[in-house]
Amino acid sequence: MVYKGLIEKYRENLPVSDKTPVISLHEGNTPLIPARNLPDKLGFNGEIYLKFEGMNPTGSFKDRGMTMAVSKAVEDGSKAVICASTGNTSASAAAYAARAGIKCIVLIPEGKIALGKLSQAVMHGAEVLEIDGNFDEALNLVKELSSKYPLTLVNSINPFRIEGQKTAAYEICENLEQSPDYQFMPVGNAGNITAYWKGYKEYNKAEPGKYALPKMMGFQAAGSAPIVEGHPIAKPETIATAIRIGNPASWKTAEEARDESGGVIDKVTDEEILEAHRIVAATEGVFCEPASASSIAGLIKYIKQGYFKNANTVKIACILTGHGLKDPDTAVANAVKPKKVKAEIKDIINIIGF
Amino acid sequence: MVYKGLIEKYRENLPVSDKTPVISLHEGNTPLIPARNLPDKLGFNGEIYLKFEGMNPTGSFKDRGMTMAVSKAVEDGSKAVICASTGNTSASAAAYAARAGIKCIVLIPEGKIALGKLSQAVMHGAEVLEIDGNFDEALNLVKELSSKYPLTLVNSINPFRIEGQKTAAYEICENLEQSPDYQFMPVGNAGNITAYWKGYKEYNKAEPGKYALPKMMGFQAAGSAPIVEGHPIAKPETIATAIRIGNPASWKTAEEARDESGGVIDKVTDEEILEAHRIVAATEGVFCEPASASSIAGLIKYIKQGYFKNANTVKIACILTGHGLKDPDTAVANAVKPKKVKAEIKDIINIIGF
Ligand SMILES: Cc1ncc(COP(=O)(O)O)c(C=O)c1O
Ligand SMILES: Cc1ncc(COP(=O)(O)O)c(C=O)c1O
Repeated sequence: MVYKGLIEKYRENLPVSDKTPVISLHEGNTPLIPARNLPDKLGFNGEIYLKFEGMNPTGSFKDRGMTMAVSKAVEDGSKAVICASTGNTSASAAAYAARAGIKCIVLIPEGKIALGKLSQAVMHGAEVLEIDGNFDEALNLVKELSSKYPLTLVNSINPFRIEGQKTAAYEICENLEQSPDYQFMPVGNAGNITAYWKGYKEYNKAEPGKYALPKMMGFQAAGSAPIVEGHPIAKPETIATAIRIGNPASWKTAEEARDESGGVIDKVTDEEILEAHRIVAATEGVFCEPASASSIAGLIKYIKQGYFKNANTVKIACILTGHGLKDPDTAVANAVKPKKVKAEIKDIINIIGF
Repeated sequence: MVYKGLIEKYRENLPVSDKTPVISLHEGNTPLIPARNLPDKLGFNGEIYLKFEGMNPTGSFKDRGMTMAVSKAVEDGSKAVICASTGNTSASAAAYAARAGIKCIVLIPEGKIALGKLSQAVMHGAEVLEIDGNFDEALNLVKELSSKYPLTLVNSINPFRIEGQKTAAYEICENLEQSPDYQFMPVGNAGNITAYWKGYKEYNKAEPGKYALPKMMGFQAAGSAPIVEGHPIAKPETIATAIRIGNPASWKTAEEARDESGGVIDKVTDEEILEAHRIVAATEGVFCEPASASSIAGLIKYIKQGYFKNANTVKIACILTGHGLKDPDTAVANAVKPKKVKAEIKDIINIIGF
């Protein structure tokens, strides 16, 4: 059967009915790419799988939640959606609202939003407002606005978002025909770790023998690590702008996922993130955005710490939450520049060396 | 069965054997998204389908050809691939070479390469050389280099590229359970129109009753329209940098596709391209790159001309060859800018109007 998006595929596990108008861009069904060179590169003899969520229609996992949130908004007769965003949520909300033919209003924090994400929100015709504040302030504003005006909030505190996003865990289970032993992932507002944990628990409940519960290993950026530090961060900073969040909305459920699974929520530095970002692109051909690379940075950190016993029996899923194309500036700034050369064979051979 | 890339899926129709090491990033299997709002918007009562090739791993259709070209290069013992590129070919070649663990050398034309594409080539560790010349000159250089040195050429004159790319036509046929009546697509170096036509002819040959041959409708940018003008263009110009090509390598086979199918190869202006680019993002939530939008621009032009008789019985496939995130600068330059606003409810309400 032709794949038509995650609502059609997982209808029975989602809060939809025949009356729900399905607004879909054929999100989900993203590949779980077995790492080919990374284990060797990292001196690790377990299996590493890359869940490449950058292959969603707007280039991030947010589409999984947004197909649900916007379909339900339309079902409820809503004429406009609103969100606060570090970029990916707004790109996704704007795209699904455009497809639904409803309005989209987006509040972005000052300055720090990656170019690709901004281009999406504006092209999909959202009303984009840049506030003089950070993500956490923007989130407070959209909460208040949606409580007072006829605007549907589509941040991940909208429970339909979590329902849609949990399907990524389903897909990993189906792909592996078991659950992974560990899942490494970025943590920002903490909706996604909440969603994966829900998905894994549902599969586990249905078939406990087949789908054991993985340990959830979440990573925040060192300058924006409220859960790790144990208190909100007033001025979060990190190059990984998607997870530049000081007071996560799903803080409590993230801690539950960590504690129930026997996992960790830890932090990685911007340097570790950028190094991981480069390594996964250069060794596997998978280009993710900086925030996504915090999952790989976390894995590298834990391999170095000798965290894994019997690594050769271990299966690890790393969630690459967004496409590298979302943030080309960061990539170009940190990479080797192209060399200029005359259009002559001998000049070229001089450089490439033969 | 879990999808593992187009070589595994279409093995029997591709020149591979058990000995071919499959280098895959799970390319292909992209959605054919039924347009929801576009027919109304364009005053057209046929069916329009968007083949969104931007959902390939590196964000363009080139991945279909590259999985084949790089797998075969590795099978043949090659240690390095080389290409000339307006950006997407190099992004794809660099990614697959990284995954294969071989070298990649890329010649790009001076100046005009979209930021996203450049970020990919450098992050995937390719040796990127910017020559003081245009795409056509770069292609001549890599042809000469690959004939004299142990470098495998992976431009679309590499026949394995065409073999990989033809699978997009297979997918459309499978999705629709018939072939489309018309296919609208961009034409640059003309490899892709050649590949689609091959794919359609193969399906037609296998089941002529089920899969009729579509009319192939190719579109060049007005400032880079050698096939339309009937002669090479020395200094091709267009905002759609991916199809800024003055002397297409597959010129002859593109004309064959046109003539055998009873289609056309025509041109659209940069203004028409940018308008189509905006319309498809704002009405369908699908963000493609400018070159890709030439397919929609072509469709708009032909609808306006009254080209379609009995439109209500017509099924049209539009190929959106690359993701909008490839070229965020062009998008941002041509869209409404975000508005700056104080982080206060009343200031926000003033702007969004309630
Ligand atoms: C690319 C990317 N990775 C990770 C995250 C963090 O996800 P969450 O906020 O659900 O923790 C986000 C969300 O903002 C994101 O855009
Ligand atoms: C996005 C995009 N569209 C269209 C084309 C044109 O394809 P072809 O060169 O096969 O005609 C290219 C190739 O350069 C491309 O990158």
